Amino acid sequence: MQFQLTDELLEQVEQLIESQSDKQLKKLMDDFHYADIAEILDELDLEGAMYVIKLLDSETTSDILMELDEDNREKVLKNLSAQEIAEEVEELDTDDAADIIAELPEERRQEVISRIEDEAHQAEIRELLAYDEDTAGGLMAKELVKVYDTWTVAGCLRRIRGQAKEVTRVHSVYVVDKQEKLIGRLSLKDLIVAKSDQKIADIYISSVDYVNVNEDVEEVARIMAKYDLEAIPVVESDENKVLLGRITIDDIVDVMKEEADKDYQMAAGITGDVDSDDSILQLTKARLPWLFLGLVGGVGAFLIMEGFHEAFSKYAVLFFFTPLIAAMAGNVGVQSSAIIVQGLANDDVKGSINSRLLKEMLLAALNGVVLALFLFLFVWAIGNSVNTAFAVSISLVVVIVVAGLIGTFVPLFLDKRGIDPAIATGPFITTSNDIFGILIYFSIAKLILGI
Amino acid sequence: MQFQLTDELLEQVEQLIESQSDKQLKKLMDDFHYADIAEILDELDLEGAMYVIKLLDSETTSDILMELDEDNREKVLKNLSAQEIAEEVEELDTDDAADIIAELPEERRQEVISRIEDEAHQAEIRELLAYDEDTAGGLMAKELVKVYDTWTVAGCLRRIRGQAKEVTRVHSVYVVDKQEKLIGRLSLKDLIVAKSDQKIADIYISSVDYVNVNEDVEEVARIMAKYDLEAIPVVESDENKVLLGRITIDDIVDVMKEEADKDYQMAAGITGDVDSDDSILQLTKARLPWLFLGLVGGVGAFLIMEGFHEAFSKYAVLFFFTPLIAAMAGNVGVQSSAIIVQGLANDDVKGSINSRLLKEMLLAALNGVVLALFLFLFVWAIGNSVNTAFAVSISLVVVIVVAGLIGTFVPLFLDKRGIDPAIATGPFITTSNDIFGILIYFSIAKLILGI
Repeated sequence: MQFQLTDELLEQVEQLIESQSDKQLKKLMDDFHYADIAEILDELDLEGAMYVIKLLDSETTSDILMELDEDNREKVLKNLSAQEIAEEVEELDTDDAADIIAELPEERRQEVISRIEDEAHQAEIRELLAYDEDTAGGLMAKELVKVYDTWTVAGCLRRIRGQAKEVTRVHSVYVVDKQEKLIGRLSLKDLIVAKSDQKIADIYISSVDYVNVNEDVEEVARIMAKYDLEAIPVVESDENKVLLGRITIDDIVDVMKEEADKDYQMAAGITGDVDSDDSILQLTKARLPWLFLGLVGGVGAFLIMEGFHEAFSKYAVLFFFTPLIAAMAGNVGVQSSAIIVQGLANDDVKGSINSRLLKEMLLAALNGVVLALFLFLFVWAIGNSVNTAFAVSISLVVVIVVAGLIGTFVPLFLDKRGIDPAIATGPFITTSNDIFGILIYFSIAKLILGI
Repeated sequence: MQFQLTDELLEQVEQLIESQSDKQLKKLMDDFHYADIAEILDELDLEGAMYVIKLLDSETTSDILMELDEDNREKVLKNLSAQEIAEEVEELDTDDAADIIAELPEERRQEVISRIEDEAHQAEIRELLAYDEDTAGGLMAKELVKVYDTWTVAGCLRRIRGQAKEVTRVHSVYVVDKQEKLIGRLSLKDLIVAKSDQKIADIYISSVDYVNVNEDVEEVARIMAKYDLEAIPVVESDENKVLLGRITIDDIVDVMKEEADKDYQMAAGITGDVDSDDSILQLTKARLPWLFLGLVGGVGAFLIMEGFHEAFSKYAVLFFFTPLIAAMAGNVGVQSSAIIVQGLANDDVKGSINSRLLKEMLLAALNGVVLALFLFLFVWAIGNSVNTAFAVSISLVVVIVVAGLIGTFVPLFLDKRGIDPAIATGPFITTSNDIFGILIYFSIAKLILGI
């Protein structure tokens, strides 16, 4: 079943476009899943992509649009009239429809929305556009199957046949009362297994997870992953519990991937969710700021070393160890910040900040002593005085401990302040630790060697 | 609905255990989701956890077991008899059951399996245990709903009522022929919407995604995410397509989280999937090796600088810039390796290695020139000769370009060799780039300044 995007296939498609052999092209595309077609279009030039999109019916192309690379989708949408976009949107579930429209420039949005014929669909999209995209409201779809507790199983099945046509995947059936208040759920399975004359009120499951429409998407993802949910209803408020929409796991999977990628890039000193196929300019914008931070840090390190330059003549060897000290400070800092940032993301950082710091201190000290031992032997073995060896290795221990503490404290501090702790990983920690490390190193060395 | 694990709640639970108030304790627990109870037990001491587990019925405790921290689950299982474990396993779906048993020490496994009363369940678990845990077979469950193409809709619904009782979530209904060969699928929705006298052969959807039982789990995750699948059938081979089992999205979500966490930790120089609550010893084992690598790198840097020590008297300033050079080399290396590793994971690294390297070279050169300009001005402004400023900044550019190339090449190379490219990120790249960077830096400086 595996789809592989080969150069041959790509060439074939390009030729069919070239020769405008619409019939064959359509036939070829019909065999592919829309996600695969999107993969093909991502590789074609804009004209080629537009040609294919105009060729296929809007039912397919709307799905393809959703799967395209964001940059490519933007280009394609630019090339479609408001009317054409409206027709695509008509085919999409409300959540995808709202996402597409949200990507349009302000001035086009209203025009596109106003051209959506299905008024219910239009109203629902308007509603969804009002929510912040990082909240449950921004992620949910209006499509869902709901039944009233007063209905019978037979009546439900009859009505569901109607509603279900609108809904791609049914998952749970939500049970509401006359006030549209969410009071429970049912699986289609339960309905099928139940006797047809039973009342919903007698068979529905009253324990139902739900999220508030203003809940943060990361929290929604955490809840759905924790409780193994495939869909979760969204309510207007915890008080009235009015059922507004539903979030499905496939959207959460995307959110999780984006979050993971973002944190990973952040830790590597890359901002703005770029991918390896982005333009050199985009990649520079994402990487240069962090590198500049590193440059500033390096200048800081320079100034510190310069401050100790009189020690130079006698203890040149000290200066040869600065890269080692800086590297260790950086590595330890990244290790401890990464594990805290991850712990915070997975919500498994328990206990007080102080106990954390204490633990990290012990951990760093343990690592530090082991490493310092090797360093001491090396420095001493290559013919330096025991004092020098002592100075270098003692400061290594201190540097590692301080680096560990900084790496632990900063993300915890940012998190308490409501700032994304992920920004504290990578270059940020490395740089600050380079400076602290080198400063501590020379200060201690100076103390011990009495420079 | 939000569950919050407060110290008060924890205290209350501990007191109820202390005073052995089983009734109240049971009543309290009954209000919680098993995932929440697991969260509570993770915080209790072993005796406390065991007390609660013995108190609750195996239907609940089996689910709780699955949600416990792996380390805690191991401890709990140690304290349960083979008979007790068998009873827990009896309640679980085959995939979870197999996972639990796989965690047991070899000698206990057979004993536990042999005590499972339901023989079909027992046989299925034996089958699943035979598959590698990193393959589709290791992830799939035997529970699924299948129908034969010769059945009628009415007949299906009747039979499904039987099968469905076994299956927690139905998702798709899989259609097979007499040879158990997967030929298509149906959603419950389709069944409900269809007329009861229709033949399955006439209404089933023949295009059905499936994976081979030996497929790698990461690939399965990629496929399910790409095609927005909530469940995917697993077949014995692409030839006979015999339906063996089914993988559901909630298991894939866990796989994705683990993968993301693993890569993130790898990039931070942490191995062995530890979390912030693990013991200091576990954390040391996960972190020390990478730090040691850093130490070796630092020693390498030392030796290089020592090799240039005669330049010392005249160009001491050069040595003050080594931390800066090393830091930049490290940062650039991490940036470029991270974006390649991520691209490989998301399967969107297209084109040849050479085009990649060329792109990275241009990107690095662009960043390098901008940064070098600032550095030149700084070095020159603090009163060094234009030559010195020139030497430092030129080498910065070269160092950045080389660092970028190494960071791009190594993961691509490892991937081609079938090695997980993620190990190439973090400390590995930083360390090697530190050494290369400093070597290049002094060589170029020597050349330009004619030391």
